This record gives sequence, structure tokens and C-alpha cells, in this order.
Amino acid sequence: MAGSILGTIFCISTWGESHGAGVGVVVDGCPAGVELCEADIQKYLNRRKPGQSKFSTPRKEEDLVKILSGVFEGKTTGTPISMIVQNQTQRSKDYSEIAQYYRPGHADFTFDQKYGFRDYRGGGRSSGRETIARVAAGAVAQKVLESLGISVIAYTKKIGSIEINMEQFELEEITKNPVCMPDQKAAKKAEAFLEECIKEQDSAGGVIECVIKGVPVGIGEPVFEKLDANLAKAILSIGAVKGFEIGDGFSVAEKLGSKNNDLFFMQNGKVAKKTNHAGGILGGISDGSEIVFRAAVKPTPSIAKEQQTVNRKGEEISICVKGRHDPIIVPRAVVVVESMAAITLLDALLVSMTSRLEWIQRFFRA
Amino acid sequence: MAGSILGTIFCISTWGESHGAGVGVVVDGCPAGVELCEADIQKYLNRRKPGQSKFSTPRKEEDLVKILSGVFEGKTTGTPISMIVQNQTQRSKDYSEIAQYYRPGHADFTFDQKYGFRDYRGGGRSSGRETIARVAAGAVAQKVLESLGISVIAYTKKIGSIEINMEQFELEEITKNPVCMPDQKAAKKAEAFLEECIKEQDSAGGVIECVIKGVPVGIGEPVFEKLDANLAKAILSIGAVKGFEIGDGFSVAEKLGSKNNDLFFMQNGKVAKKTNHAGGILGGISDGSEIVFRAAVKPTPSIAKEQQTVNRKGEEISICVKGRHDPIIVPRAVVVVESMAAITLLDALLVSMTSRLEWIQRFFRA
Amino acid sequence: MAGSILGTIFCISTWGESHGAGVGVVVDGCPAGVELCEADIQKYLNRRKPGQSKFSTPRKEEDLVKILSGVFEGKTTGTPISMIVQNQTQRSKDYSEIAQYYRPGHADFTFDQKYGFRDYRGGGRSSGRETIARVAAGAVAQKVLESLGISVIAYTKKIGSIEINMEQFELEEITKNPVCMPDQKAAKKAEAFLEECIKEQDSAGGVIECVIKGVPVGIGEPVFEKLDANLAKAILSIGAVKGFEIGDGFSVAEKLGSKNNDLFFMQNGKVAKKTNHAGGILGGISDGSEIVFRAAVKPTPSIAKEQQTVNRKGEEISICVKGRHDPIIVPRAVVVVESMAAITLLDALLVSMTSRLEWIQRFFRA
Amino acid sequence: MAGSILGTIFCISTWGESHGAGVGVVVDGCPAGVELCEADIQKYLNRRKPGQSKFSTPRKEEDLVKILSGVFEGKTTGTPISMIVQNQTQRSKDYSEIAQYYRPGHADFTFDQKYGFRDYRGGGRSSGRETIARVAAGAVAQKVLESLGISVIAYTKKIGSIEINMEQFELEEITKNPVCMPDQKAAKKAEAFLEECIKEQDSAGGVIECVIKGVPVGIGEPVFEKLDANLAKAILSIGAVKGFEIGDGFSVAEKLGSKNNDLFFMQNGKVAKKTNHAGGILGGISDGSEIVFRAAVKPTPSIAKEQQTVNRKGEEISICVKGRHDPIIVPRAVVVVESMAAITLLDALLVSMTSRLEWIQRFFRA
Repeated sequence: MAGSILGTIFCISTWGESHGAGVGVVVDGCPAGVELCEADIQKYLNRRKPGQSKFSTPRKEEDLVKILSGVFEGKTTGTPISMIVQNQTQRSKDYSEIAQYYRPGHADFTFDQKYGFRDYRGGGRSSGRETIARVAAGAVAQKVLESLGISVIAYTKKIGSIEINMEQFELEEITKNPVCMPDQKAAKKAEAFLEECIKEQDSAGGVIECVIKGVPVGIGEPVFEKLDANLAKAILSIGAVKGFEIGDGFSVAEKLGSKNNDLFFMQNGKVAKKTNHAGGILGGISDGSEIVFRAAVKPTPSIAKEQQTVNRKGEEISICVKGRHDPIIVPRAVVVVESMAAITLLDALLVSMTSRLEWIQRFFRA
Repeated sequence: MAGSILGTIFCISTWGESHGAGVGVVVDGCPAGVELCEADIQKYLNRRKPGQSKFSTPRKEEDLVKILSGVFEGKTTGTPISMIVQNQTQRSKDYSEIAQYYRPGHADFTFDQKYGFRDYRGGGRSSGRETIARVAAGAVAQKVLESLGISVIAYTKKIGSIEINMEQFELEEITKNPVCMPDQKAAKKAEAFLEECIKEQDSAGGVIECVIKGVPVGIGEPVFEKLDANLAKAILSIGAVKGFEIGDGFSVAEKLGSKNNDLFFMQNGKVAKKTNHAGGILGGISDGSEIVFRAAVKPTPSIAKEQQTVNRKGEEISICVKGRHDPIIVPRAVVVVESMAAITLLDALLVSMTSRLEWIQRFFRA
Repeated sequence: MAGSILGTIFCISTWGESHGAGVGVVVDGCPAGVELCEADIQKYLNRRKPGQSKFSTPRKEEDLVKILSGVFEGKTTGTPISMIVQNQTQRSKDYSEIAQYYRPGHADFTFDQKYGFRDYRGGGRSSGRETIARVAAGAVAQKVLESLGISVIAYTKKIGSIEINMEQFELEEITKNPVCMPDQKAAKKAEAFLEECIKEQDSAGGVIECVIKGVPVGIGEPVFEKLDANLAKAILSIGAVKGFEIGDGFSVAEKLGSKNNDLFFMQNGKVAKKTNHAGGILGGISDGSEIVFRAAVKPTPSIAKEQQTVNRKGEEISICVKGRHDPIIVPRAVVVVESMAAITLLDALLVSMTSRLEWIQRFFRA
Repeated sequence: MAGSILGTIFCISTWGESHGAGVGVVVDGCPAGVELCEADIQKYLNRRKPGQSKFSTPRKEEDLVKILSGVFEGKTTGTPISMIVQNQTQRSKDYSEIAQYYRPGHADFTFDQKYGFRDYRGGGRSSGRETIARVAAGAVAQKVLESLGISVIAYTKKIGSIEINMEQFELEEITKNPVCMPDQKAAKKAEAFLEECIKEQDSAGGVIECVIKGVPVGIGEPVFEKLDANLAKAILSIGAVKGFEIGDGFSVAEKLGSKNNDLFFMQNGKVAKKTNHAGGILGGISDGSEIVFRAAVKPTPSIAKEQQTVNRKGEEISICVKGRHDPIIVPRAVVVVESMAAITLLDALLVSMTSRLEWIQRFFRA
């Protein structure tokens, strides 16, 4: 496939550019019978909408979603769900300048080399607006997962060097502060740090953590389609993500086996693990514990500070990226991480239904 | 797909269990005309073979590969290349015990839950022997990449807390010490640390780094099929890997945009980057710089130390995993990381040939 | 995948119901640099538009296409091309009745069983309007194929028992008569036959033939991805098609090998075939001759004549399908057959570029 | 994919050449718990084995299958099942001659053009021996289908112009005569006709019919993954097949809608159809009736009669294909058709389990 399609059974196909007619997604393979309306989707889109705080671009976009197909009398029909968010900002005038040069940290150069030219308006296909389609599809996946008792929740774990205190974790806090941290104190510090960044015409990075609860044992396939491998792909496919780790992640490098192994014990008549260094996945297959992973997000590449670069003619120039940009991508990416996790997990769940002959026999006898 | 198949054009399908007849791979989509013989494959397999140092299991396996199809008169024919490595150790007697319980850190429990039972002999399909098939397929990919001037080289960057000194980097050193570090001094320290682990009946983890040179600009697709996203999936699909990062990876969280952006300049008439924080990929597409990524590898879960666990009857028991196991997975996983990177990159390269109409027109006119 | 996505490199994802907001398609993997505007697509859509003759439903639909993404400054950018045709008829009132029963020859019953309920308005997803998305995607494929010197042309070969005279073949005639036959005389007879069908409140079937010229040798993959196998799938995926044959097709059953083999000879310094019983494909791979295949199309299942059926409550009832329906599907399906052939062939062409190492080496050195 | 891999969940990957080490298949995605041994596979392979009658090549091949993985203690484990049939005839001496020219009706020419050269020994990958892998995979699929109460049975319907009498249909007869016809009288006539063909150094074609019983309603996906579309692809992917039709197939062209529609009625409290012109599939989804389709098979292209052709140097020559070849492909292809049908149906069945949310909820609650 050529890049914008993902999934085996629950399969999404996204499209759209930053300043074209809009962005959208076709969700194929959603089961029939899911109660779904535009508000279900909008709820998630609003979390990534620009202009919600001083830390996000003031671009005025309502990002209202329309469902064009696949839903009838309030329920999904099993056929493709097409969703569109029309762009309100379509002017290309402002972009005449960036058409001519390659912004550092952006995909301008690589797109030009790959395709011969590019839709330079606002980053075109490589714009952050592309993630609208992911969030819309993710909202559908979340609806299905919720109905199965599964929750997927992400939050900001770290901004610059400011990290949340996991002891003070408050879930409700996530949506209450502009940096999406589940820790009010850390959030305050992060906000101060970001204001400093803005003053310095600079930008900051961070880490997003995602916790998935309620996943049955047995989801994910061995070898290449391991659940964590597919989560890694899904998360790394988000524009600014530079790293992925599950469970104890990179810290396992310094640990001993005796400390890293999660010991099994019996809990309420079920096999459970005393610790969860593994992050809920063993051998690529969910083990019944919480799935916990993290994504490293780079600082926004668009900064007002002067930078050296080259233009399409091959001349070295110096530029300042105009317009006011998000000083940090992390808070708006939180819901994108959730969405990609939900999409990936749902697809794995559906595939997992065929693992045992006895299950298939029971299914077709029912 | 159900887990053991990977790729769009260069497509591999692996099979085999630790103590069955053997392990193998079918490589479909390898271009015709590649000079290939068993020695080309064996060279890579020998690097992961057990029993090469005191830090790897003394299991006696020659791991000799046979090519069963797809090669004629010394060259690939364009049809599937089937390769097999027969197992020499097929006794299942020793495993009667581990059949009954779930080894901590292993996939015994999740396989049992997913499939209802498992081939418990030596870990069955979730054994490290499964990676033989990856290395055999990777050797084929490497052959093609070499002929295009591309090199993929991995090495141990870190074991426990002992890290190599990137200033003293010596490529030839990698194959000279048992821990695959390109730094003799660090290697010595790591060896001492590992001997300590063995004494303590414990195991250690580490970090593998991989550098890919010579990749043309424009490889990888936007959105879901980003080159780094597919590398992440490929690397996380290796049994013991718990994290993946590209370029500056997780450290970008603490960096400012002005420090993280790689500035473009002109070098020998070509666009180049002054730094490579991005790790050679921008917007999911190769930018012409070296591709650099790292994988976090957990400590070997099989340790001789006593551990708590449960058995299939749901009884809590205490066990010592018998047999002598590798005190560390890292050195033998180095070539597996290389292989997965080569497989992923080659597939992306082939897909990338169709990006522009003018290229397609030139191709069919030629 | 769940049904509405097709292709390996040139990959299409369709959506939409007969009486929803519209129907559309996302084309992923179209090379960059193809000159494309809405008129290029509309030209093909107009050929399947209803209301063009007395043999097609008078439903008033302009079927105007809008391109929403993937085209910039008149050329494709290499990113997904999203196209939409809005439905003008969205009333569901007329369909309250058919919601309750299963029309013979339609998918009402199977959709209800598969999904638990269905969008019954005008056939929902199983409506003939679904083919709009195929034709829009096919128009894009045709544009690329044309630029490579390849033409894909279909026409009506047979209606009822009236067959065209291949000796009198006139290409221009195809678009001049309402039955799309390249033979004026046969067309007249077919029209008379169809008028008879209308009077009898009945419908007719037929055969569509498709000829593809200019295909280079070597397109298609051995074994499962044979070019003719993929053409068969693409054509059988069109709603009313019940059979597919390539070259001499079913008549080979009665032929001797000595008559069926196409003998090779030299023509202008190139290997050519004296006959083309094979239909342009040998071993699944194009042989340089014209590709010729046929599709059998069933009579329109919606007829005004009274028919027996059952309703959702399980009661046997008798119905007359209301509204004026096409007495024949064939003429409007001609462009759908062309489209599916173009989509399939283009995808196979792109995949075929990677068959030989020498071609890949030349490509990356260029 | 590059040609030798098929399927979404039940996924097969075949390999091997006529005169290489052997042919084989890896079956990925077979559910765990299927009782399977080599005899289960051998039973089907024996039906396509050469040398069983005067109408099949006397090449001495036992075609014994070995299962190399994926089965433990007599049951499938859910991991890939690798199967191999070693070739006994590996001499390449006899083929030195056919290496130099292009046999009419064979893929020699197209393989050479696609790949630059070919494994010319016995047709290499395009040999009929490639179908051994299909039959082995088909045997696994049949085992699963049987356990679900589904039977897939194919037979010869026609050889030359000799057709079976459907009124005299006798299932047991199929395996009793060398032409696999369920009608003793027709079989006798066909045998006489084939003896005539042998005398004339010529070959004959025919038609194979396949009937699938016990398929639940709702299998197959709308639009591109229609069950009949995938059957068409699977069947056309068999070497010598030139046509596919479902239900009344090509004869629908001459029928009226009122005669072609299958009327619904109630039977034992269930919706049933009075006729089965559709062949058991409506809108691409199984309707609960028998699935009936046919394949047109061309006469064996290898004939002893002198034929004109060209050699690799571009010289026109005249040849006689040496060795004794099957005068007809049909009887040995019967089990291949069955196998491809079983593989395709099983994959569709598994995908169909996810159509409704209520089913998924019930599954995960169970």
C-alpha cells in the first residue's frame, strides 16, 4: 500500500491536505450495530482543535466533522464510514514564500525529492492537520472498545525536563490544564516553561504515556504482528514522534532479569502478575495486565527564531518561520496517540477472534 | 494476516518451532538476478549461532541453511526463495516440566490463553530460534541492498550501564569481541559485568544501535507507511525488544526546537543537513543522511535463580529455569536487528520506485 | 480487509450508499505528476450516468464529481486523491416498503443476515450507484495508462441472444448507440429486443467484452497474482457479473491443444504470436498481445412483474418492484468494466517494475 | 505482494519449482486445535499425483508430504504450518533443449521477458507441480471446513464436447473413473475421446464444476471482497483455467430477469430460494444455498505434434515437445479447484466473524 491505509480488518484510509478542501477518513471493517453520531467523533476532535490555549496555534478552525456514509438510523451498517472535516482556511497566498525553501525539521525537502514537487500550503499532506483523520477514525474505534469494557487513555508525562509525579496521578486533571498532565503541580511548572519558550521564539518537546485497561488475554499475533510491534508502528507514524517504548522500555537495558521478570501469582482465581515491567504484553500477546507505553515527541520544528536553510534553487538562505505556531506539539498529540492505540488494538482484537477452532465452531453453531 | 508474514513487495513468511523439524522462511518478491548461494546466508546465520562464547547458550546447533527454491544457476529467479535450517535438538523429554507452568517473562501463559495449548518444547514458536528465519531473509535483503551501495550495520551500544564511547568507534571491533561492541574497552567492562551476572544466576539487558548508510532520498511513504514507523514495527517484533528510537529519540523530549532542527546547507552541489538529530528520516521519508536507530533489549527472562510463578492447574509454585541460558540476548540479537532493518528498508525502496509518473514513463519506455 | 479496499500499490478505498450523502473513493498510491482535473473524471462518469436513454432509469442525478485532495496546481501530488459525488436523491420515504421484504435477485436478504439490519434506501451499499466510485478511480488509472500508451476499451458484445458481428466492428459506434455496441445493425436489433422487455415488464442480460492494447510484456505475477486472476476478481466484484473469461474462455473446453496453442513467430524483430487464443496472458503474465476478456452480466433483478418473496417477519408475500428501473444493466456497466480493468492493470504494472535487480539498480543509479 | 501469497487471515505462501528440491507451502492463520496429520494431506495429494491412469504423465513421483511445523501432539498450534513435498525427479539434462526455445501455450516466453531468464527445467515455477502446494494448503482448509459441516466437492463436468448428464449424477463415481466424472457413461465416452487425442498426438480441454454445501448465510464481504470475486481470482490463478462462472454464469446473458431471479419462500421456518440461478451468492455474500461454480480448462499445451515457434536467439524453428504429457489437465485439476475453493471460503468465513458488534461482544464476554 502507498501509505495512507492501515489495518487488516478494521481498516482506515485517510486523505487531505492542510489547505485543500478538507481532510477525511474512510473506515472500512467497522462492525455493524455500533451506535454512532457526529457528536461521538466531535468530542475527540475538539481535544486536538487549535486555539484552545495560549500553547496552541490561534488558527481559527472549528474542525466540525460530517459522517457521509456507513451510519443508518443511528447505527453503523458494517459498510465504510466516510468522514470529512472541511478546511476553513484555504488561502494559499501566505505560503508563496515557504514554497521556495525547505523548513528545517519539516518534510518539505523529502516530499520535493520523492514526488518532484509538493503542495506547500501549510505543509500539505505532512501537516499536523492530517491527524484529524486519525482522531476521527480513533473515535469510532474507541466507541467499539468502550462497549467491550476497554479504555484507552493518554496524557502528557513530561514536557522538557518537567515530569509528572505518578504518585499524584489525577485522571480528571488531564482535561483541565492546557498541557494535559494528570498532575496539577507539574502542569503549572510546564506552563511556565512553555511561556519561556514562547518568549525565546523557541519550542519544546515531551513524552506522552498511554494506558489501556480491560484488554482480554490473548490479543496480538506472534512474530511480526505482535501487538506492541503494531502499536510502535502506529505511534511512530504520528508526525513528530521519535521514540516508542512499552512497559519499562529503555530502562530495561540497565536492569537484571531477576528484577525485570514479572512473577505470576493467583488473584481471584485468575493468573495475574505481581509487577508489570512488561507493560501488559508478553511475546507480542496481551497478558491481561494494563498495557502501558510511551511516545517521545520532538519540539515543534516551526519556530520564529532565525534559521539557516536552502531554497529550491540550491541557495543557502536564512529564514524565520512566520505565523504563530504551537510552542509544543505534545498536548494536542495526546488524543492522537490515544486514537492510534485504539485503532491498532481494535484491529488486533478482531483478528484474534479466529485463534482457536473451538471458538470458530461455537461461533458458527450459535 | 496472522502474524508470520511481513512486507508489501519484498514479502517474507516465516515458520518453525524451537524443537520441531526446523525453522525456515519463504522470501517472495525478491527481484530476479541476485547472485545468491547458501554461503551468503550462512555468513549471517553464523553471527547468531549459539555456543560462540561463554555468553551464549552452549546448545549445539550448526544452523546450516539450505536453499530449496528460487535460485537457479547461482541467481535468484524472481520466484519464492524457500530456506530451511533443520533443528538438531528435537528431544522433547527435557521439557516435560516446563510444559506444566508459566515461566516469568516468557510467552508461555499468553500462548496457552490464545491457542488453548502450546508447543512447550523450548518455547516453541516464541523461542529465540524463530529469529533464524529473519536472519536468513535479512541476508537476502542485504545482498540486494549491497548491490545498490547501501550498508546496514548494527552493534551493541550498551550493556547494563556500560556504554560505548562513540569517539572510539571501531567498526572492525564489532565482530572481534563476544559482546559485539565497536569499542574494545567498553567490551572488556561489559564482559566482566556479564561474568558477574552468570555468577549471580542472573541476566542483563542492553541497547543495540543500527546505522544505515547510502540510502537515497525519498524512501518511505507518508502517513502510516513512514520508513521509521515500519522500522519500529520490525524491531519491536523481535522477541525481547521493549523500545525503539530514531535519531535523538527520547532525548528530544528535553530539547528545544532551535537545537533539535537540523539546518540544511549545500554540500558538493547537494542539499545536506548540518546535524542529524532526525536520524535520517523527515516526515517518514529518508532525507539522504545516515539512518540511525536504537533498540532496547530486555534481560534474558530464563534465569537459574528461583522465581515464583503458577502452573497450568492454577497452583502457585517456585521454579528454577533449568539448562544454561544466554546471560544476555543483546550480542546475538545484533544481526537480527540488522536483518529486520534490511528487510524493511528493501521493501520500502521497491515501493518507492513508483512515486512519480515521469519515473514510470521512463521505466516503460526503456 | 473488509471489502471496500482494493490494490497493492495503486490502492482504492470506496464508500457510499445509494441514498446517503454521496458516494466516493480515496485513491492512494497514484504517482505524482499526473495532470488531472475534474473534467477528466466527469468524462467517464457521464458514460454511466442514469437517464441517458430509454434503457436507463430516469432518476435525475447529475453525478458531478469533486476532487477534494491529492491534486495541486493541476497535477497529482502522490498523496491520496479523495473524490466525492453527492447524491441528489436522498429521500428515504419511497423505500419504507422495500425495507420490509427481500427483493429477489438482490442482496437485501444477505445484508440483513450478515449485519443484522441494512440501509434499505435504494439498495444502500449494494446499489449500482456504488460503481460511481469505481469509475472515478478508473478514470485516474486510465489517465496514467494513456500516458504510457495503453488503452482499455470495453463494449457490449451481446444482449439477450443478439451478438455483434466482429467483422463489422466500429469503435466510434460504441458511444453513439444507447446499448454501447460497436455494430450499428446489432445495436438496432438489441434496442428492439429491449423495448419488448420493457413492455413485458421484464429485463435482459448480456456480455461485455474488453480489449486492452499496448500492454508491455511481463505484467502480472506468477501463481496467485496472475494478471488474469486479478482481472477476474475485479470484474466479478461488479454487482451483476456472473462470469469471466479470457481469450477463448469457455470455448477452450471443446478445443484441441494443437488448435488452442498460439504459435510464436518473429515480427519486426520481435517475438509475436500468430493467434491470440490465450487473450494476451501466458502463465498469468502479459505476453505483448492484446488482452481480451469478457464478462457475463445478469438481467436487472428489479422488474415490475409480480414476484413471490418473503418479508422480514418470515411471511410469504407477492411484490412488484416499483419505480422504473433499467431494463438492462449492460450498457451502463461497460464503463465500469473498463474502470476495473484499468485499476487492476495499473496496479500490476507498478508492481512489475521491481521484477529484475538490473532494473532496480538502473533506477536508483539514474 | 509478489505473487505467491494469498489470503487475509488464513494466509498461504507457496514455493517451489518442478525440478528443484521440492515444492511446499506455509499456512499461516490456521486456527489452533485442528487435528491434523500427514495422512490428512496425503489423501488429497494422491488425487493429483501423476501416473494414476493412461491419461496422466507416467512421471514417477510419490509426492509424499512432510509437515515441518505448526502441529504438536496431533493438533495445529495456531502457528505456521510448513509442508514440503520433495521432488524425486531433479535431472535437468532432459531440459537442455527446451531451455533454448519458447513452447507455445506455456509461460516460457513471458517468464524470460519478466525476469531476464528462467528455471527452464520442467517449466520451473510455472509447472503444474506448483499446484501441489495449493492442494496441501487446501487439505488443511478442508479439515477446518469439514468440522464446521461444510463440504467442497469438484468433478469433471465436460471433456471436449462430452458432458455429464446431471440427472445421472453419482458422487461415488467421481473417484472411480480416470476422468473424475460423476457419470459412468459420460466417463466412458470421454475416455474413448482422450485415447483418440493421444493417438493424434493432441490434447483436450474441459470444464470442472464445484459444489459447496453447508455454507452459512453471510459469508463474503460487499464490493471488492465478494465471495464470488475471490473464488474467481482463486480459480483463474490455476495455470490452465481460462474462464470462471457462478450459478448460471454466461447463460444469464440470454435470460430474462423474471426467469433469472430466484424467488424467496419459507422452508422449515427459514428463508430459502425456490431456484439457485445465482449459485448461492447474492451481492457477494453467501445466501445459504449451495455454491456452484465452473472453471474452463484449456487443453494441455505440451503436445507431441510438430509446432512452429521461436528460440531465444529470435530464430523461427519447429519443435515437438518431448516426453509423454497428460493429454488432458482436467482430471488432475479437479482436486486443485476444490483446494482453491476451500482456501478461499475458509478465509472468507474467518473474516466474516467480525461483521456485527453483538457477535464481537458475545465473543469477548464468553
